[in-house]
Amino acid sequence: MKVAIVGGTGYGAVELMRFINNHPYATLELVIAHSQTGKKVSDVYPHMQDVWEIQMDELNVGELQKNVDLVFFATPPGVSKEIAPSLMDQGVTCIDLSGDFRLERPDVYETWYETTAADPSYLRKATYGLSEIYKEEIQNASYIANPGCYPTASLLGILPLIQQKWVDPATIIIDAKSGVSGAGRSTSLMTHFAEMNDNLKAYKLGKHKHIPEIEQILQKESGQLLNVTFSTHLIPMTRGIMATIYSDLTVQKSTEDIINMYEAFYEHAPFVRIRANGNYPATKEVYGSNYCDIGILSDERTRKVTVISVIDNLVKGAAGQAIQNMNLLNNWDEKTGLDVLPVYP
Amino acid sequence: MKVAIVGGTGYGAVELMRFINNHPYATLELVIAHSQTGKKVSDVYPHMQDVWEIQMDELNVGELQKNVDLVFFATPPGVSKEIAPSLMDQGVTCIDLSGDFRLERPDVYETWYETTAADPSYLRKATYGLSEIYKEEIQNASYIANPGCYPTASLLGILPLIQQKWVDPATIIIDAKSGVSGAGRSTSLMTHFAEMNDNLKAYKLGKHKHIPEIEQILQKESGQLLNVTFSTHLIPMTRGIMATIYSDLTVQKSTEDIINMYEAFYEHAPFVRIRANGNYPATKEVYGSNYCDIGILSDERTRKVTVISVIDNLVKGAAGQAIQNMNLLNNWDEKTGLDVLPVYP
Amino acid sequence: MKVAIVGGTGYGAVELMRFINNHPYATLELVIAHSQTGKKVSDVYPHMQDVWEIQMDELNVGELQKNVDLVFFATPPGVSKEIAPSLMDQGVTCIDLSGDFRLERPDVYETWYETTAADPSYLRKATYGLSEIYKEEIQNASYIANPGCYPTASLLGILPLIQQKWVDPATIIIDAKSGVSGAGRSTSLMTHFAEMNDNLKAYKLGKHKHIPEIEQILQKESGQLLNVTFSTHLIPMTRGIMATIYSDLTVQKSTEDIINMYEAFYEHAPFVRIRANGNYPATKEVYGSNYCDIGILSDERTRKVTVISVIDNLVKGAAGQAIQNMNLLNNWDEKTGLDVLPVYP
Amino acid sequence: MKVAIVGGTGYGAVELMRFINNHPYATLELVIAHSQTGKKVSDVYPHMQDVWEIQMDELNVGELQKNVDLVFFATPPGVSKEIAPSLMDQGVTCIDLSGDFRLERPDVYETWYETTAADPSYLRKATYGLSEIYKEEIQNASYIANPGCYPTASLLGILPLIQQKWVDPATIIIDAKSGVSGAGRSTSLMTHFAEMNDNLKAYKLGKHKHIPEIEQILQKESGQLLNVTFSTHLIPMTRGIMATIYSDLTVQKSTEDIINMYEAFYEHAPFVRIRANGNYPATKEVYGSNYCDIGILSDERTRKVTVISVIDNLVKGAAGQAIQNMNLLNNWDEKTGLDVLPVYP
Repeated sequence: MKVAIVGGTGYGAVELMRFINNHPYATLELVIAHSQTGKKVSDVYPHMQDVWEIQMDELNVGELQKNVDLVFFATPPGVSKEIAPSLMDQGVTCIDLSGDFRLERPDVYETWYETTAADPSYLRKATYGLSEIYKEEIQNASYIANPGCYPTASLLGILPLIQQKWVDPATIIIDAKSGVSGAGRSTSLMTHFAEMNDNLKAYKLGKHKHIPEIEQILQKESGQLLNVTFSTHLIPMTRGIMATIYSDLTVQKSTEDIINMYEAFYEHAPFVRIRANGNYPATKEVYGSNYCDIGILSDERTRKVTVISVIDNLVKGAAGQAIQNMNLLNNWDEKTGLDVLPVYP
Repeated sequence: MKVAIVGGTGYGAVELMRFINNHPYATLELVIAHSQTGKKVSDVYPHMQDVWEIQMDELNVGELQKNVDLVFFATPPGVSKEIAPSLMDQGVTCIDLSGDFRLERPDVYETWYETTAADPSYLRKATYGLSEIYKEEIQNASYIANPGCYPTASLLGILPLIQQKWVDPATIIIDAKSGVSGAGRSTSLMTHFAEMNDNLKAYKLGKHKHIPEIEQILQKESGQLLNVTFSTHLIPMTRGIMATIYSDLTVQKSTEDIINMYEAFYEHAPFVRIRANGNYPATKEVYGSNYCDIGILSDERTRKVTVISVIDNLVKGAAGQAIQNMNLLNNWDEKTGLDVLPVYP
Repeated sequence: MKVAIVGGTGYGAVELMRFINNHPYATLELVIAHSQTGKKVSDVYPHMQDVWEIQMDELNVGELQKNVDLVFFATPPGVSKEIAPSLMDQGVTCIDLSGDFRLERPDVYETWYETTAADPSYLRKATYGLSEIYKEEIQNASYIANPGCYPTASLLGILPLIQQKWVDPATIIIDAKSGVSGAGRSTSLMTHFAEMNDNLKAYKLGKHKHIPEIEQILQKESGQLLNVTFSTHLIPMTRGIMATIYSDLTVQKSTEDIINMYEAFYEHAPFVRIRANGNYPATKEVYGSNYCDIGILSDERTRKVTVISVIDNLVKGAAGQAIQNMNLLNNWDEKTGLDVLPVYP
Repeated sequence: MKVAIVGGTGYGAVELMRFINNHPYATLELVIAHSQTGKKVSDVYPHMQDVWEIQMDELNVGELQKNVDLVFFATPPGVSKEIAPSLMDQGVTCIDLSGDFRLERPDVYETWYETTAADPSYLRKATYGLSEIYKEEIQNASYIANPGCYPTASLLGILPLIQQKWVDPATIIIDAKSGVSGAGRSTSLMTHFAEMNDNLKAYKLGKHKHIPEIEQILQKESGQLLNVTFSTHLIPMTRGIMATIYSDLTVQKSTEDIINMYEAFYEHAPFVRIRANGNYPATKEVYGSNYCDIGILSDERTRKVTVISVIDNLVKGAAGQAIQNMNLLNNWDEKTGLDVLPVYP
């Protein structure tokens, strides 16, 4: 299968290349990078020397449609909504790592992204690609909106409790923490090393674009209209997301009860690992891999449950899940090309 | 005023020495360090060379009582409860950075610390030294239980809302994050550099000794029996604590309303700084200083308030607040010896 | 091929398991870990959950000899010299990641390691496993002394210039910098996070065990008796070694001349990448991979050459090179099981 | 004494403000910051809230001359050479943290800085402000060229050996390592957190602007024409410089001999601390302070000396030394305003 990457110089793209390099069925035909046309991937990422010497091209939709079977968008917000429709019209399968097609309602997109939404007729064709939860839909999709990094960690962490109705969805609070690579490769004072090293920052409180994405799925799965309290913090580390999720239990369940339920829920999910009682995952324990590791505490004193869910934001939170979705789409083993272990320590 | 430090080789002690070095009225007479008797401070902490060449001694209560006016305990749990009573009997003022005299109820101490509590008759003589909240009690105290690092950040962050009854105390969730120096100087796999660098860990969920300390004050100030949900995370940085505090608003108050109330509440507190609307403090912005910086968001969508409270865990969370309490005890200006700015970046 | 790992709880062992997991011809039969007998690998390394659930055993030489074809030693100094001889006698192939069999002269070992050397008759059977330089010897070896991390980076960086006689070997100065994982998993104050984070330390100046190892090869390849100035620094990062190597040029050669010579020298070495003029490798650019990346500057002002050589200390500096040597021994493609890209950023 | 800072938003300026805040004789009258005119210091640096609420101004040389006694330049290269001459004409004392007046020869400046040098008639009036070495010249100076961070660490580390003629100056190699704050506050891909964290980079090999500055002083003090080999590396930490300096001994001197000589050399230098035999300084041990700590090894095997010299690049390498020079100029105690201890850990 011939694939292309649009948006070839960001961290999402470079991680896609890492996994495609290990993938037996996919070959990388084209890398589109407007700002770097003519340069080789290894000029921009020296760690790719001798591996990806492919030259980056300008976007040409006709060429894309002619030469490749599948297009990955690893673009900033606002790009794929302009380009994807013509690819959809031509029947090119797309996996979109950006947020442009994740929100079903254009008005919600416009409120949070502060720009025009994609054409609703195309929006309707997109499938939300949270692999473990929407496997069947993904297998039949033509356009996959790959989930955001925070929603992936948060939703995989809390959905089993929602679906079992063991928690009150209106009480969910998600305190999320991310490594700095989540902010991308564009430089800013916030991500300047001297300002971020040995430091801890809260940011975009109450304003993060991933809030409506999480709410959309929580509402769908709980059947309730609800708003979620979701906070984001920048951690002085490169990769990794941890979502610490709090919710009121509606039934009396011990930590063991909940762990058993999660293990059953994710029985056929090779990338989700549930930790034993008293054991909570650290982000480094999934570093570089497609795992989502989950630890659980049911606190009898407070009658609340605390869920710790960790992923590598660039893998399960972006490129890894995109490859997983490509596998699902093609009925390949979900793990194809993704069977690398976490790099620890 | 002649002071002694008991527990001379930990981070609390070494920070006390940094501030005593700048203090015009206090001189360091004795450093007690059981395990390092005979060594100089600078043998254990080379950064003190030419500054603190004082030799460390064995504990001798009689000597202490004879030679010093005030004793700082910078000891692990379980030490001061054995030693302090005889000093109290002799009328030696003490500021205790450990947790031994913070909890009023011996049974609560015994549940959380898993060891015998101090003698209740002595326990009753201790004053909880949260400087900004209990200034008058501190000024008249003879034994000060210096607050824990997490409780300091958490309580300074939430108490104004409690006292105003603008939040429902039963809904408080505190998601706390700490730099690794909070774990002290004893080595462990958890704080081993290769395991902690570029990593993020949740730990002691539902079990942290600071939970009953926070609850004790929340109960006292709210007049309600309540349990608090409090989680702790280890951040790959040396210093700093951030408490992200969530609570349900009981009244409709905007972010500006709450900021104004906090500014009034802390009008005479030189070490508490309230950030403007939309501005949230980062831990590095108080690094090395005695400040507690607070940012506030009232979220209209969720009717919850989020408070971000940051301190340097070794300063306002330990040695700095201890010096502040020594100043209060002696009716010196609260800032004496503590007027260093944050070291930024 | 059935393999065993002796010393199963260190970082070398856990990296071996990462690569064996990807290796098509090697299966892990036994993990020997004296201190953790009965535990599973994933008990000690939670990131291995669901992957390596193998139980760790006590050492039993007879069992080893009966059940496996190849033994990896990932043990501290002083262990393999006791155990390996009986395996050698039984004809079991070994790859030893420790330093016990690297030094040909027992007296040199004893001076630097401050303990008795291995029996000379066994020492003579060991082959120094610097894969790119001693490929043929390795292919015919029965006992491979896998090189140290610093020697690997240093020697791959300077040997082409030595063999061409373009530098004066007596003038070589190696200023080496390492990530903290190089110090292993045993905790110490030096590698305590609060002491090492945001810090930079020089250590073991003039005393590092890798000095005689580097000298042995420099002497062999240059034919000169010489002592090398070699300094080691601990960098606040987890993985990576950089050797900055200085030497006086004996001939006038431009940077381009030297780059061309290196490219020819390493033409058949898939894991050595020579950077273009003006481009110097960073350690993160080989993170998690078996590459050694080399940058070169010939400075006309000083008539000195500066070589920057970087590796991942746990991969090319330990487990990766061990797998590469296993491949060479078996006449498998050198890259088998090692074709993972650097994890960047 | 009334002072002004020109270049008010960089790290040099913000450190000057930290020390001026503690200084009994200097008051900050004006902060000039072209790009931020009208904003307060605390708008740009929130950690300064309630401390430095001073508003930043446009440059107006007449105002400067009228209102202040001393001007600090904390500007990028190329700024002070344009502005300073008119201040010199007006008799305003200046301390220039930039490189514009450090090099005596305009042609050397132009080669390394790739721009026109300052007018030679003004260049001649500048005094190189390496406090410990040129104390008398500084006391009589009117324009002080404050040394660069790398030259400060390097020269304080090696000059005693040069002046004693115990080393051959032509053999000096300086392998220098710096925290990332040395690159300033302007963002770049090189100092982007995700690219620099957990990473180690060599940069500007053979091209750094501090090379001619070091050579100028080495030549002056040794009386020899020489070129120095000087390499720079970026360390994943915020502050700190370590210079590892190698040179051939011309006489047989033990480590103890050299330590004794250094102690005598720096007997009256309160900010230089010589470590005992076998003890090497780490950068964190001077963090936030004006110390330069030096460790020494005389290696009998190689007949080379290795000197480890560490400073905080923003303090002794910039703002701290500038304050020290202001003190010398005014015949105040050298330590005035600078008596803060290192912040450790």
